[in-house]
Amino acid sequence: MTTTGKQLFTTLSSDGKLTLEIAEETFPEPKGNQVLVKMEAAPINPSDLAILTGAADFENAEYSPGKVVADMPEPFLSGQKARHGQRLPAGNEGAGEVIAAGDGDTAQALVGQRVACVPGHAFSQYAIADAMMCLPLGEHDARTGASSFVNPMTALGFVETAKMAGQDAIVHLAAASNLGRMLNRICQEDGMKLVNIVRKQEQVNLLKDMGATHVVNSSDDDYMAQLRAAIKETGAFIGFDPIGGGQNSDHVLKAMEQVASAQMDEYSRYGSNQDKTMHIYGRLDLSPTILTPSYGLQWNVSGWLLTPFLQKAGMEKVAQMRARVQQNLTGTFASQYKAEVDLEGMLTKDAILDYRQMKTGEKYLVTPWG
Amino acid sequence: MTTTGKQLFTTLSSDGKLTLEIAEETFPEPKGNQVLVKMEAAPINPSDLAILTGAADFENAEYSPGKVVADMPEPFLSGQKARHGQRLPAGNEGAGEVIAAGDGDTAQALVGQRVACVPGHAFSQYAIADAMMCLPLGEHDARTGASSFVNPMTALGFVETAKMAGQDAIVHLAAASNLGRMLNRICQEDGMKLVNIVRKQEQVNLLKDMGATHVVNSSDDDYMAQLRAAIKETGAFIGFDPIGGGQNSDHVLKAMEQVASAQMDEYSRYGSNQDKTMHIYGRLDLSPTILTPSYGLQWNVSGWLLTPFLQKAGMEKVAQMRARVQQNLTGTFASQYKAEVDLEGMLTKDAILDYRQMKTGEKYLVTPWG
Repeated sequence: MTTTGKQLFTTLSSDGKLTLEIAEETFPEPKGNQVLVKMEAAPINPSDLAILTGAADFENAEYSPGKVVADMPEPFLSGQKARHGQRLPAGNEGAGEVIAAGDGDTAQALVGQRVACVPGHAFSQYAIADAMMCLPLGEHDARTGASSFVNPMTALGFVETAKMAGQDAIVHLAAASNLGRMLNRICQEDGMKLVNIVRKQEQVNLLKDMGATHVVNSSDDDYMAQLRAAIKETGAFIGFDPIGGGQNSDHVLKAMEQVASAQMDEYSRYGSNQDKTMHIYGRLDLSPTILTPSYGLQWNVSGWLLTPFLQKAGMEKVAQMRARVQQNLTGTFASQYKAEVDLEGMLTKDAILDYRQMKTGEKYLVTPWG
Repeated sequence: MTTTGKQLFTTLSSDGKLTLEIAEETFPEPKGNQVLVKMEAAPINPSDLAILTGAADFENAEYSPGKVVADMPEPFLSGQKARHGQRLPAGNEGAGEVIAAGDGDTAQALVGQRVACVPGHAFSQYAIADAMMCLPLGEHDARTGASSFVNPMTALGFVETAKMAGQDAIVHLAAASNLGRMLNRICQEDGMKLVNIVRKQEQVNLLKDMGATHVVNSSDDDYMAQLRAAIKETGAFIGFDPIGGGQNSDHVLKAMEQVASAQMDEYSRYGSNQDKTMHIYGRLDLSPTILTPSYGLQWNVSGWLLTPFLQKAGMEKVAQMRARVQQNLTGTFASQYKAEVDLEGMLTKDAILDYRQMKTGEKYLVTPWG
């Protein structure tokens, strides 16, 4: 028995056309520990936009119902050479009802349940998912459970990464995002100190209202002084940056070094011996990362990705993290959405131009059945 | 009993004047495991230039015998706030004769011997050095032993860093330098594969003549193709970059990713899962480091400094490395010099404008007694 339903595909051709389209797709019978999920809700995460919109020109794209064709500029076209011509599904995560299962025990146990899942093709009416990665939602609806994986595990992953590095304080950029608010709740629960960096006064207010102690506004004239004061008070020498482009991480490293070198007894031409680390976990800004020579050579800038982190953390730790998410879905790990769209609605000009901006806290939810 | 002799000092004032001057200095009696070394030779390493010349304007400086005053431009002036007003010695390493020692056994055993040492004020007629860090030179003269520490331990440190990361191949930029040639000899001895990146055909020839297998010329039109081929053949996913500024490391990471993603079965929006690491160990170029979004998020760019590396490697490993240097001073660890200058000669316009360029392989040796 096979099932058919609508699914979104994204194709980048070698001549620079990015095509997003909704197509009728046939889903095979789930095997082993696979389940077939009738998808009810899936968030559009920044990590989805890399493959969905990237740097393409959606202002001047050709729109038709359920389809859009946009030009992909260089260097982003040749930078994605490996995907040229491939018709790719999209959507990391979502939630829905398990309507069929392979013969594996874990899969069979989920039949009839509402679950959060991570199929990698969540922008679809159906999805084949790994039962081991499904989170039963109990009485919660799909909307509540749709973002159970990417943001919660990422936010918990930051805290674990800091702990694994022997740190008890974190700097976070674009800190008023869904993820950033979640991180504030986790840090408050875990006693991890957190320096929040935002760009607007209303975001300062939002985080302060949540009980955040350290919120720094990068639009203020005295941003660097605010940042140094917060780093000094918390001892935060590890940070997480979803923006990537420009000098966001650079400024944090500079402030970290200024705090560290002010505490040194003696001048060193090599800067302080304080380790300073920034993890870039996203590319909200596709311009290059700029690192100035203003913090010696005792620093580290790394990409941070959820999957390799989870592998490094190990099965037991990941199971603990998942249980914590499941038990706190409406509290610590709650997500907010700005708008809901169906699959065709995802591909309208208004929607794309809005969600591709990835404005802080303005997340879209896809409900594939409308 | 105290000793007096000439020593170089460097002072950056808060109003932007960098003053280098030779002054008569008094050296105290060595205590404990200190020795007093009559310095005979000291190399001007790139790591010395950070404090000696930095980004100051030596083209339009005021020169007088044994003294030069140059303007330090922004942002380098405020970037070095921690040293404003401090009169600092300079010169990481050198060699000379031990003429007095503290009462410690290690120090006493060195009296009358010629040693290499790491006093941090080697541009001087005398230096107080830690006997534990001195390397007895036996029959070798000071010129042969002057560069026994920084370059040899750094080159050995690269190989150890790669091994500690489970790697058996290295990429090295500016590879025709004294350090780069040393690294070639070490890698040949140790069976570590090495991709040498240089900027001129004569440097390609020089390294090929030394038996280097992989030498890539970044001035060639097909540089990226050459680099990809060498990375593919060696499997080199860890590199060392003394330049720092610009896109040198960026290009290497990009080539690494292209090699890794070409070997993947399936397209991933996050790039390959191959770890890619560049260590920036110098700042020959003081412009910002530029990292483009063209190699996913599985990468790492870090500052690399010798002292923290040695601490991480541990006493036993460091002792092994030092013994290897001592036994191969005229072979594997030999250095070449372009010119010799005395202390006053260091501060002439001709000399400064020449050595501050840090041209590959054109190192100066300071002989403080002329």
